[in-house]
Amino acid sequence: MPDALPHNIYDMEFTAQQIAEYLGGSVEGNANASVKTFAKIEEGQPGAISFLANPKYAHYLYTTASSIVLVNEDFVVEQPVSATLVRVGNAYEAVARLLTLYESMTQRRTGIHPLAFVSPAAEVADDAYIGPFAYVGDGAKVGARTQVYPNTTIEERVSVGDDCILYPHVSVYHDCRIGNGVILHSGVVIGADGFGFAPSAEGYEKIPQIGIVTIEDNVEIGANACVDRSTMGSTYIRKGVKLDNLVQIAHNCEVGQHTVMSAQVGVAGSTKIGEWCMFGGQVGVAGHIQVAPRTSAGAQSGIVSNRKPGATMMGSPAIDARQWQKSSIYFKRLPDMAEQLHALTKEMEELKAQLDALKQQ
Amino acid sequence: MPDALPHNIYDMEFTAQQIAEYLGGSVEGNANASVKTFAKIEEGQPGAISFLANPKYAHYLYTTASSIVLVNEDFVVEQPVSATLVRVGNAYEAVARLLTLYESMTQRRTGIHPLAFVSPAAEVADDAYIGPFAYVGDGAKVGARTQVYPNTTIEERVSVGDDCILYPHVSVYHDCRIGNGVILHSGVVIGADGFGFAPSAEGYEKIPQIGIVTIEDNVEIGANACVDRSTMGSTYIRKGVKLDNLVQIAHNCEVGQHTVMSAQVGVAGSTKIGEWCMFGGQVGVAGHIQVAPRTSAGAQSGIVSNRKPGATMMGSPAIDARQWQKSSIYFKRLPDMAEQLHALTKEMEELKAQLDALKQQ
Amino acid sequence: MPDALPHNIYDMEFTAQQIAEYLGGSVEGNANASVKTFAKIEEGQPGAISFLANPKYAHYLYTTASSIVLVNEDFVVEQPVSATLVRVGNAYEAVARLLTLYESMTQRRTGIHPLAFVSPAAEVADDAYIGPFAYVGDGAKVGARTQVYPNTTIEERVSVGDDCILYPHVSVYHDCRIGNGVILHSGVVIGADGFGFAPSAEGYEKIPQIGIVTIEDNVEIGANACVDRSTMGSTYIRKGVKLDNLVQIAHNCEVGQHTVMSAQVGVAGSTKIGEWCMFGGQVGVAGHIQVAPRTSAGAQSGIVSNRKPGATMMGSPAIDARQWQKSSIYFKRLPDMAEQLHALTKEMEELKAQLDALKQQ
Repeated sequence: MPDALPHNIYDMEFTAQQIAEYLGGSVEGNANASVKTFAKIEEGQPGAISFLANPKYAHYLYTTASSIVLVNEDFVVEQPVSATLVRVGNAYEAVARLLTLYESMTQRRTGIHPLAFVSPAAEVADDAYIGPFAYVGDGAKVGARTQVYPNTTIEERVSVGDDCILYPHVSVYHDCRIGNGVILHSGVVIGADGFGFAPSAEGYEKIPQIGIVTIEDNVEIGANACVDRSTMGSTYIRKGVKLDNLVQIAHNCEVGQHTVMSAQVGVAGSTKIGEWCMFGGQVGVAGHIQVAPRTSAGAQSGIVSNRKPGATMMGSPAIDARQWQKSSIYFKRLPDMAEQLHALTKEMEELKAQLDALKQQ
Repeated sequence: MPDALPHNIYDMEFTAQQIAEYLGGSVEGNANASVKTFAKIEEGQPGAISFLANPKYAHYLYTTASSIVLVNEDFVVEQPVSATLVRVGNAYEAVARLLTLYESMTQRRTGIHPLAFVSPAAEVADDAYIGPFAYVGDGAKVGARTQVYPNTTIEERVSVGDDCILYPHVSVYHDCRIGNGVILHSGVVIGADGFGFAPSAEGYEKIPQIGIVTIEDNVEIGANACVDRSTMGSTYIRKGVKLDNLVQIAHNCEVGQHTVMSAQVGVAGSTKIGEWCMFGGQVGVAGHIQVAPRTSAGAQSGIVSNRKPGATMMGSPAIDARQWQKSSIYFKRLPDMAEQLHALTKEMEELKAQLDALKQQ
Repeated sequence: MPDALPHNIYDMEFTAQQIAEYLGGSVEGNANASVKTFAKIEEGQPGAISFLANPKYAHYLYTTASSIVLVNEDFVVEQPVSATLVRVGNAYEAVARLLTLYESMTQRRTGIHPLAFVSPAAEVADDAYIGPFAYVGDGAKVGARTQVYPNTTIEERVSVGDDCILYPHVSVYHDCRIGNGVILHSGVVIGADGFGFAPSAEGYEKIPQIGIVTIEDNVEIGANACVDRSTMGSTYIRKGVKLDNLVQIAHNCEVGQHTVMSAQVGVAGSTKIGEWCMFGGQVGVAGHIQVAPRTSAGAQSGIVSNRKPGATMMGSPAIDARQWQKSSIYFKRLPDMAEQLHALTKEMEELKAQLDALKQQ
């Protein structure tokens, strides 16, 4: 495997003609140009396909070393191009389709590795994969085609659906339920105890957390993110939710379907987040609140309440984003404002004195 | 195991009469009603016990499907109830007692699993449990009844006390000391190198971190949290401290006893935090400072100093919480204030002109 | 091993004379005083060496139980001292040199442990160490003297250079590249999928992330930190970068050489950070931006742009640090300013009325 093409791990090669046919596009240039891998247009290399969607990158088209470039149908070529072009309706969508095709050709592993531990009282589908040093406890179920990578731990009575990927070092505590098509990246912890303590004079008494976590279909959770088990009942991550790395979802929460949270977001306990919300990185959400569907929150904002669907919020505490942006501008000018205020106060004193003098004339 | 009662993993059943006797309460309704599990009152089910402590949830009492409901002694029933009531002094405390009883009935595992690695030079108590793929290094000690879950790593010369739980994927670096009754959730890292580097023209030189971490009795640390080892001496987590998921404690810190930190809090190096503090989520604490006992800090605040015991703080930099709340209100109004200031300045100019004109009359 | 000296794990002993010679310093007191370990001056003990660099700690010199204390050449002794002094040009640098020497005497482990899994299609250097339950996949390479601790996972075709340390529970996804002298602490995840999704009416479609992560020489990454793989091409962590615990670097980023980030910093996707930057804890950096070399950012700040090399920034959004500090002072005074503004407005009304009255006279 040559150094320049590290990712052609599947030993495949496609021509511009084949790619155009797959995407329903048209070829401009050598229809037999062939590629084995992908490259960014600015890092193009022979044997790679690139794409051009953002006009800011258009100048790279004329110098890229890539063999094929996907462009939009209406893209106007302004200089000679050595790469073969494949014109498609939407170059960005087309490359996503190609990447998905490429990924789907990866050979899936199957079977229980002899160095795995699988309880005789567990049920593992025949075509699932359990890697070395993975642990599957009593009463656990692992569905069809699911990939359990090395060093991952699935505790007692957990159920994992079909077509899931649990990367290395995932930990799923007892009794939690994971749907179909779920991806858990390395270091994810599902079902650790919620942070519940009853204060006393001698210290904090642990409140046992006997609930579970339920993760619905097509959820993806990023590396080292945590979803805590409920005190009773279940913490819910609804279908299609995407959580980025290092996100924290506390006990008794519900994250509505198709909600997306960027890295390092934290949601405090018993909060219910609506569907289709989008949170930027490091957002915090208070406990015991409801967040309306389609709420957007800018990075680092702190949501203490939002009942208005579709609101865009910023700041800590989070307020309407436009209002926050205006206030932020004036925050910078605060020293000037204070000075102006001080000057005005002085002028006022003077004016009053002058007026008093006038009145006494 | 029927789907509706996923958590009755212990095969137990109790009557209202038995529960009332255990709690010192009284039965109202069918004393033979029996339950096998817990449920939230709003998610009640036959065979479950629920509780009602928060008056906001009172209306669920009349429709819940749970067989038994714990209520406060003085609760006034206003409609017909199908569940059996058990009246107790404090329903919330009573349910915590029941949950603890329930949890205590879990069978503890014992013995070294044949797939674990335990150094011949380690000391493991007979009734401790070491799970598959767990690693216990030379000179390490594991105390009585302590549970070391699968895939957890205890490095050389670490000592772990009695009655601890180390969930899967915990990593304790060499020489660290863990007391009795400590719970470390999955992914916790104890004793990684403190972040110490000496700058030079060529880059940063690592300063070896030869100290340790000492975790005292009854500490609980949440999933994927980190406590770094000291440069020399020890980083200390004092007895009864509770740290939530993804918390970061840097090298040379000391966290005073019974202090509680919510998820994603970060404490920079060499800081000493007093006893009985409470920090909300995502709080940051500066390095090389002392934080007074019983300091409360609101979520996302940034503590740069606090010498006043019992202070309640908010904001970044954190100030007195009430002062911060007032200022936050005015932050929202900054554009209005700026406009008002602008208008005043103009009016002032006009007034001065008018006054000058008057004076010249 | 006595309890009081837990860290003398290497069974070594040095005299003041030997230490002074090694450091090029001079002895004051008993040149035969000998030590086996290090201790903070305020926690001194017989048989330990301490150092005094910060004048604030000078009073401890007169009471410390340590046998030897490193002090600066020009330090003036004001009271009797029982410890032997070793005078050196820079006590802080000298102790760092001694610590490094001490650490370098640790015996390095070698060989593949029989409980490890190493693919027959992997290449592991003869003097590398692969611990129990570590996994090294097909086509992976592990360089000379590199230490792969227990329970660490190195997936297919990863290359790890010479003299690296991968602590327990590290996860390196397929095809990533790690240079020489790299330290990855427990729970680090290298190469998890970037957070890329294409929205559709039915939910978010995953965009496959087929790129890699490249970590150059002498990088150190703290516990539970994450660096995501690129969509195409590579995410880059350039040589000498130091990332603290729980840091998040998103896909397609580049972190310039010798940049240092404190714990819990998050960098959003496709951002390029210059060389020699320093970020405090919990800083957030927006996606798709460039951050100029030598940018300093205070803890919890939120960088949305910085093109000015050497800037010092604070706040969210981050602005010039001095400007931010001034504005922060006025933030506290906002209620007063508002009151003052209100009073001025009233006075203005009164003045206008008085003036009108005067004019009508």
